[in-house]
Amino acid sequence: MRIAVIGGTGKEGRGLARGWAQAGETVIVGSRSLERAQQAAREINAAVGREAASGSTNRGAANAGDIVVLTVPYDAQETTLWDIRDGVRGKVLVTVTVPIDTGNTRRLRVVPGGSAAEEAQTLLGPETHVVAAFQNISHTHLEEAKSIDSDVLVCGDDAEARLDVVRLAALLGLRALDAGPVRNARVVEGLTVVLLEINRRYKSRGAGIRVTWLPDGGNE
Amino acid sequence: MRIAVIGGTGKEGRGLARGWAQAGETVIVGSRSLERAQQAAREINAAVGREAASGSTNRGAANAGDIVVLTVPYDAQETTLWDIRDGVRGKVLVTVTVPIDTGNTRRLRVVPGGSAAEEAQTLLGPETHVVAAFQNISHTHLEEAKSIDSDVLVCGDDAEARLDVVRLAALLGLRALDAGPVRNARVVEGLTVVLLEINRRYKSRGAGIRVTWLPDGGNE
Repeated sequence: MRIAVIGGTGKEGRGLARGWAQAGETVIVGSRSLERAQQAAREINAAVGREAASGSTNRGAANAGDIVVLTVPYDAQETTLWDIRDGVRGKVLVTVTVPIDTGNTRRLRVVPGGSAAEEAQTLLGPETHVVAAFQNISHTHLEEAKSIDSDVLVCGDDAEARLDVVRLAALLGLRALDAGPVRNARVVEGLTVVLLEINRRYKSRGAGIRVTWLPDGGNE
Repeated sequence: MRIAVIGGTGKEGRGLARGWAQAGETVIVGSRSLERAQQAAREINAAVGREAASGSTNRGAANAGDIVVLTVPYDAQETTLWDIRDGVRGKVLVTVTVPIDTGNTRRLRVVPGGSAAEEAQTLLGPETHVVAAFQNISHTHLEEAKSIDSDVLVCGDDAEARLDVVRLAALLGLRALDAGPVRNARVVEGLTVVLLEINRRYKSRGAGIRVTWLPDGGNE
């Protein structure tokens, strides 16, 4: 499977891209700058010891990926989506984006469409299956090569697409839970802001969540 | 400390009231029906083996409580708050309420004020310190007398009031985390709907959350 990571030179994108490369997948790192994308791909290849990653423009990456993961900051989301929207048509687009108030990262930002994911779904139309995921996984944990004590909540309107993303998370050693329609992404995105608040108050680094009381008891 | 539980004859209110009674506090169960309130108080007293609880009207309970916990359904919140607002002035009012779409409990309901807690704060004015908490703790767990594997996220604009509620949670054996301003309640209330969705999909009973990666590692 070819996984395109748009904005893959950022911290979160790079962490995800390297994780999938380590899991044996083919990764295309996308960036506005081809040069920085290629540099990030070289670093990933050096880290995993094989030619798992290549660099491309965002548009080139979206065209080439079987599944496309969007990790750009919220304020760049709309422009980026217009740039890649032909390439993602008919595919699953995973949004990792959280709308953050850049003037005050602790303040919950409410966006016109309810959430970044819902706005992406509206912009791209029903042919593209938008799935929100990975917002609550701090890049600091993706960089550590150990099991990550956080669940991924997966929201999207297409059930099959949600399952695809549950599998993407499993490749990173993460438990992902089907959390229903894309509308629920506003909760999951907002939860990231609440966790940032908790990080600040409790001096934690990358607080996450685990869902408890699932019947399999699988909260390890 | 006298803890008034408004709507305390409902499942969630009754579970909380009994928990605090068990912890040695004095509880006033409030209800629209004095008779049902007194009946619930008798049941709590029988369960804990002492005269810990008394029954009252909602207004009487709010007047008598040092701290007031509102557990009525969202659609009854506004009427109830008008009824008790003189009694809660200058006190901490804890809202457990989640706005649920009664036609479709799986659908995230967005209310005009952003969240039930924010609406309560607006209605009551700044003299009353509204704190949102306990939404994600299923009454099914409150009824079981064992340690509850879920954290409580506490949101409110007054720091001291949030600490009061962290202590209220500790009386129930619950870890509570200061999750910032009342505005964040929209995330915590929404999370309850997402957890209901997860309950349905995974056939779990009362899914909750734990915040992970806190520096004390205290995620037991």
